[in-house]
Amino acid sequence: MKPESVPQSIALSLFSITAPSREYDDVIEHKINQKTKPLGALGQLESLALQIARVQYSRDKTLMTPQVADVALHMIKPTLLVFAADHGIAAHGVSIAPSEVTTQMVHNFINGGAAINVFCRQVGYALEVIDCGILQPLDTDSGVVNQRLGAGTQAMHLQPAMSLAQVRLGFEMAKQLVARHADNGTTIIALGEMGIGNTSAAAAVMAAVLKLDVELCVGRGTGIDDATLIKKITLINQAIDLHRNELVSFEAILAHLGGFEIVQMTGAILAAAEQKILVVIDGFIATAAALVALKLAPQSNDYLVFAHESHEQGHKLMLQTLQAAPLLSLGLRLGEGTGAALALPLIQAAMNFYNQMASFENAGVNNVV
Amino acid sequence: MKPESVPQSIALSLFSITAPSREYDDVIEHKINQKTKPLGALGQLESLALQIARVQYSRDKTLMTPQVADVALHMIKPTLLVFAADHGIAAHGVSIAPSEVTTQMVHNFINGGAAINVFCRQVGYALEVIDCGILQPLDTDSGVVNQRLGAGTQAMHLQPAMSLAQVRLGFEMAKQLVARHADNGTTIIALGEMGIGNTSAAAAVMAAVLKLDVELCVGRGTGIDDATLIKKITLINQAIDLHRNELVSFEAILAHLGGFEIVQMTGAILAAAEQKILVVIDGFIATAAALVALKLAPQSNDYLVFAHESHEQGHKLMLQTLQAAPLLSLGLRLGEGTGAALALPLIQAAMNFYNQMASFENAGVNNVV
Repeated sequence: MKPESVPQSIALSLFSITAPSREYDDVIEHKINQKTKPLGALGQLESLALQIARVQYSRDKTLMTPQVADVALHMIKPTLLVFAADHGIAAHGVSIAPSEVTTQMVHNFINGGAAINVFCRQVGYALEVIDCGILQPLDTDSGVVNQRLGAGTQAMHLQPAMSLAQVRLGFEMAKQLVARHADNGTTIIALGEMGIGNTSAAAAVMAAVLKLDVELCVGRGTGIDDATLIKKITLINQAIDLHRNELVSFEAILAHLGGFEIVQMTGAILAAAEQKILVVIDGFIATAAALVALKLAPQSNDYLVFAHESHEQGHKLMLQTLQAAPLLSLGLRLGEGTGAALALPLIQAAMNFYNQMASFENAGVNNVV
Repeated sequence: MKPESVPQSIALSLFSITAPSREYDDVIEHKINQKTKPLGALGQLESLALQIARVQYSRDKTLMTPQVADVALHMIKPTLLVFAADHGIAAHGVSIAPSEVTTQMVHNFINGGAAINVFCRQVGYALEVIDCGILQPLDTDSGVVNQRLGAGTQAMHLQPAMSLAQVRLGFEMAKQLVARHADNGTTIIALGEMGIGNTSAAAAVMAAVLKLDVELCVGRGTGIDDATLIKKITLINQAIDLHRNELVSFEAILAHLGGFEIVQMTGAILAAAEQKILVVIDGFIATAAALVALKLAPQSNDYLVFAHESHEQGHKLMLQTLQAAPLLSLGLRLGEGTGAALALPLIQAAMNFYNQMASFENAGVNNVV
């Protein structure tokens, strides 16, 4: 199992990604440091403003002059994408809910009654729901974006969850999806998900990518009991054992252990990096997608904003591995992109202080730095 | 030094506080648990919604029927109050900035250029600046509310910071201030502050109230170096030693070691509890005021929302003592109420999910609880 030694053929062939320029970090930092506050006193919002400035200024290379820091940061058409899919393993007793709840919740999204609807309306995200392969698709006029890779994955402890061809197709569809939004002017997307059983898939991917014991990667999802937790660990271990010799690349890991929404979120992250737009990562499942995306293209890192650290134990571990410092830690364990939605006002706040705060000179305040 | 054994005459004589009713907690919790999400999956937002519901429903006793949970939560005229004051100890080398910066920053608030202005505009807080006793007052037409208790406190390591009469006057003015906002319909206030030297006063109050070593209560404020930190600890220890026999009540602690803004924030918290409105507590200094307020009137606790855990080491310790779980931890160390401002969208989110999310029954989703 040496993923690193195998060429990452699919992602490399599909995505052309360069890191944001750091050429003008000094002028951006100077602007931040001249604001009427002690040095560094806005904490994480300061590093976030620097990151956002890097990304925005890199998107439009014509801005890249010594005066670049004078260009206001902007947030255009923030869009939250919820990737929904079902999982074969869910029929084998790893979750509190049956797979039919995935489709029921997608209906709930369409009808505006879920937590993610409430929070998107509040913070100003446009919400788009993508059917990556739920068991029972909605009507074609439902407003759900059809990017189905099948009717749920196969049960990964019995056979590969999907084929490499499905992984490629998922990446391609995610690329088109993100390109459509970027062409429409969107400068920031956020990724959420819905899929009964998807913490099992995410934990399996995490364990295989980081070569960790499954026990360290598995949690209680939305609230399973001890017996179900043991079952979940057992089946994931069985899946990894079954496919051990096939997990030869990160994309092979996705194919054997992943989910249709995890594949498409991985593709969406790579696509956002390619488009040089910000991508906000929600919870455990989105972070597993980010983990794979960053293994495939580490230069994507500066485009990612981590929104929320959940109680799911594997999440903390992944975030540490990625040296990611999420903006929130509210004990959410709902998914749907709820953490990503709630983080948007903080991202806006980072832009606003950068754009609007007075400098020591303008305000007539002693520069105490 | 046994503050508990002495009657709290001033606060008891001024404020009539009863805790919010918990009589209908079960119907409120039932409503939250019927939302389309796993039990508890919205984490801290769920306990926050319960708290807000308790407070709102207790404010209008006519709502207190078994149908109370059907009444939507509302947020009316959220108002952030910045209490500014100067500190005698600041002239003795405990801060990165001279006291004149307090007045300069108050000018900056009035001109809209400070971080707190930016964040209040973003989240929808009305901002009011209260001069509790800065060294150089602004012109009377500046828009600053005049609640001056003097031109800065005395240096607490040389004499009492203020008199008990000033503490009483500060409480009275804070009570009137909050009553004015409550009469105007405000259902939520937030407390921030500005005052060079006020982390020293807050640390001294904390050490005296909790009977802790000063070293555990003192931090680097907005960024002092090692030598200044040692000076700060020395002077605070000197102050506590000097007044040791006089620290016979929590109000005496405020008088000898506190600050004009800390006194008025303490009064504002008690006044908010009396008015049955929510009060959002910002960082280290506001939390020191909350510590005193909760010692004086523990039944105030359910009216308080803690916004941000700062890096100031004493802050974590106070929050633990108060069993408070702040909504944010962004490494802010600016004061002004910035943490309280940034937390408002989360408070709004707690209300919104409570008001707007569909129930399992309405959405046709299996109740998986």
